[in-house]
Amino acid sequence: MKKYDLIVIGAGPGGYEAAARAAKQGLQTLLVEKQQLGGACLNNGCIPVKTLLGAVHFLQQIKKANLLNIQVEKAELDFAALIDRKNRLLTRLQKGIALLLQTSGVETLRGEAKLLPGKIVSVTPPAEASDGEIAVKTSAEYTADNIILATGSAPGVLPGITPDGGWLLDNSQLLRSKTIPATLAVVGAGVIGLEFADIYSRLGCRVTLIDVVPELLAAEDSEAAALLQKSLERAGCRFLLNSSVTKIEDKTLCLNSGETVAAEQCLLATGRRAQTDYILDSAVQKNAKGYVLTAADLQTTVPGIYAVGDCNGLALYAHAATYQGLAVADNLTLKNPRAINQTVLPRVIFTSPQIASVGYYTDRCAKIPLARLGRAQTENQTEGFLKIFLDPQDTIVGCVIVAGNADALIGEAVVLVNTRTKYADLQKMIHPHPSWAEAFALLD
Amino acid sequence: MKKYDLIVIGAGPGGYEAAARAAKQGLQTLLVEKQQLGGACLNNGCIPVKTLLGAVHFLQQIKKANLLNIQVEKAELDFAALIDRKNRLLTRLQKGIALLLQTSGVETLRGEAKLLPGKIVSVTPPAEASDGEIAVKTSAEYTADNIILATGSAPGVLPGITPDGGWLLDNSQLLRSKTIPATLAVVGAGVIGLEFADIYSRLGCRVTLIDVVPELLAAEDSEAAALLQKSLERAGCRFLLNSSVTKIEDKTLCLNSGETVAAEQCLLATGRRAQTDYILDSAVQKNAKGYVLTAADLQTTVPGIYAVGDCNGLALYAHAATYQGLAVADNLTLKNPRAINQTVLPRVIFTSPQIASVGYYTDRCAKIPLARLGRAQTENQTEGFLKIFLDPQDTIVGCVIVAGNADALIGEAVVLVNTRTKYADLQKMIHPHPSWAEAFALLD
Repeated sequence: MKKYDLIVIGAGPGGYEAAARAAKQGLQTLLVEKQQLGGACLNNGCIPVKTLLGAVHFLQQIKKANLLNIQVEKAELDFAALIDRKNRLLTRLQKGIALLLQTSGVETLRGEAKLLPGKIVSVTPPAEASDGEIAVKTSAEYTADNIILATGSAPGVLPGITPDGGWLLDNSQLLRSKTIPATLAVVGAGVIGLEFADIYSRLGCRVTLIDVVPELLAAEDSEAAALLQKSLERAGCRFLLNSSVTKIEDKTLCLNSGETVAAEQCLLATGRRAQTDYILDSAVQKNAKGYVLTAADLQTTVPGIYAVGDCNGLALYAHAATYQGLAVADNLTLKNPRAINQTVLPRVIFTSPQIASVGYYTDRCAKIPLARLGRAQTENQTEGFLKIFLDPQDTIVGCVIVAGNADALIGEAVVLVNTRTKYADLQKMIHPHPSWAEAFALLD
Repeated sequence: MKKYDLIVIGAGPGGYEAAARAAKQGLQTLLVEKQQLGGACLNNGCIPVKTLLGAVHFLQQIKKANLLNIQVEKAELDFAALIDRKNRLLTRLQKGIALLLQTSGVETLRGEAKLLPGKIVSVTPPAEASDGEIAVKTSAEYTADNIILATGSAPGVLPGITPDGGWLLDNSQLLRSKTIPATLAVVGAGVIGLEFADIYSRLGCRVTLIDVVPELLAAEDSEAAALLQKSLERAGCRFLLNSSVTKIEDKTLCLNSGETVAAEQCLLATGRRAQTDYILDSAVQKNAKGYVLTAADLQTTVPGIYAVGDCNGLALYAHAATYQGLAVADNLTLKNPRAINQTVLPRVIFTSPQIASVGYYTDRCAKIPLARLGRAQTENQTEGFLKIFLDPQDTIVGCVIVAGNADALIGEAVVLVNTRTKYADLQKMIHPHPSWAEAFALLD
């Protein structure tokens, strides 16, 4: 049985980054992935969804070009071509990861891994047919002093309701569809549901979102959530909150309220679930939802076995996975272990408008509506706001931005919160006029 | 003679902000302005130019919409309507300033001020005809314990070459033109010249830029300057550097090289000059170029008289003027004077691509080409880069960003440089994926 310094299971943003970092630092590293390089983020999440959103939002802007004195006769999005471009982009980025792994010296196997007791990883040919990547043809077992589990999460399901790839789809399946139905029902109005509702509604589809929650994005700033809801309603989305699906019959959802929702297509976007069934070593403990338990250093209940990214359930974000993967890899090789501090975790909802946030919210806040920003006025993009949240000592501890370009502006807040800057010190920092960044200088 | 606590001369971004802040803090404040509220920034600079650039860059993006799978049949910019919208925006923003001044309790006079010895300010009816604002009809004299000079700068002129508003225009005059000539000569390839060249060239005008400097934007990062030059050349701009104008004859510029440049219209954009002729108190000293001399607290050579903004020649940026104006106003009223520290001054060139920068450049730098950014890939906007400059202790001391949205991204660098963050600490900050802000997380 071949022995490595490190085996990483899962080549998503946690796993491939950890493997590359470890190999660069001299560890003999094996990476095992049963599907494509890049994980859910690259293949079914962040990158493909943002590619679609980018084109859809640009179309939306073009339709309002007259506000900037530009007459456009006809603007049409070729959705099938967009899906093709999205697929080409994924292939290009997968190749980029493959190159990174190769130049870092990582051995990569395409196969299904099982974690057996005694730090043994068995790799068998993958269940799915090959798509050009070279998969293992025979089974083998490997071992290592250290193992990183980075197997991510999968779309959540509801009891008795499982996407079949036909009428009822999960987000991965819907991302392959090249046509826009006239009506779409979305079960789950979380980030995934909202981003797809945004894409489809702005392309003329009537979208109905159904969720058990009484209000949208309860963990976010309520003013931000309300603004997004209003924007999506203007685009033709209908929100049925406080509602759950009791039955599905003949392409129709029956809700607990008695209401029925018929739709051409249905997206199930009810959160995510752990992908940890491959762990056959019962010493690696999981919580009730199947996520792997970890200590502060991300070690599982078996010394030398770590879990990073979605599969530990700590923070289901690609950037959290990357951070965790790199930190664990560093700590395996560096003399001074690095503290793993994830308290300042930014998040972005890439809808129109975007909602970007970081840190936590308090009752003390400074706010600036974008309409007060000269730059927003020159571009006629005045919907939205920026809020900064302060602790009792006036230290900046959180921020939310609602804007078309919130994912660019949030960077400043990331540094403000990380550096624990005082509000009075921010006010002394000169920001360029008339820039988008000036929003931070104009706070009350 | 009526006496105030404070008289502010000039209602640009330095003056009106200082007046409003002082009045809010209880000072009886008089503000005198001979033209319109807002100064060069609002009326002839930042805001109008960015309004034009915003529309022109959007048109440019629309013309490349096929890259995002959007077919656009015909897109045309109505330049005359754009100029009208720009004018309406200026009027709206002027009204906003008027409202701010009124609610702050500032008394505002429209008239020409002269600074006489003994802290006396004489105000006479303005030379220019009224444009709806109520100007003073009779002359009067006022005095105050403190006076802030905030009279800005005017377009520079060359010996023997003065814009006449006909063929030869300065930037204020060109901003009123509603037609695009077939050819434009631009004398001076600094920020103003470059921004106008960008607007006009992208609307089909053949632009020739002439400057005595051997290379473009010598104070900026040379790679950034080269990238911008290439982009403008692709848009049809021609650069004649190392060149000076020796003669103008029959709508033709004769250069020292012997070359001649004929053009339908000519923009003179050779920097700025002090507007300080109204200072008739010789105790207020000026430098050789006419800028008012100031100490660290921005006090002139006469105690109680301060100079803020362009007229002191320290930093010709609207945001520097605002910072200085607010600082002086604060120091007049607060018990603990606030240090006026302008070492970290950001600047943005709003061309396509934009160049935004802050702090200073060193030989130690980390760089990320935008093509490595997932978000840039999804939007097909991969031209440009981000560079961070470090001192020998690895403290972040400077940054330059070349990108279409550099004016949003620069905010993060403003805070990094102000907080003297170490590069290693930046690398530990989690940035959201796949965002524009992530550029800072992907640096080498």
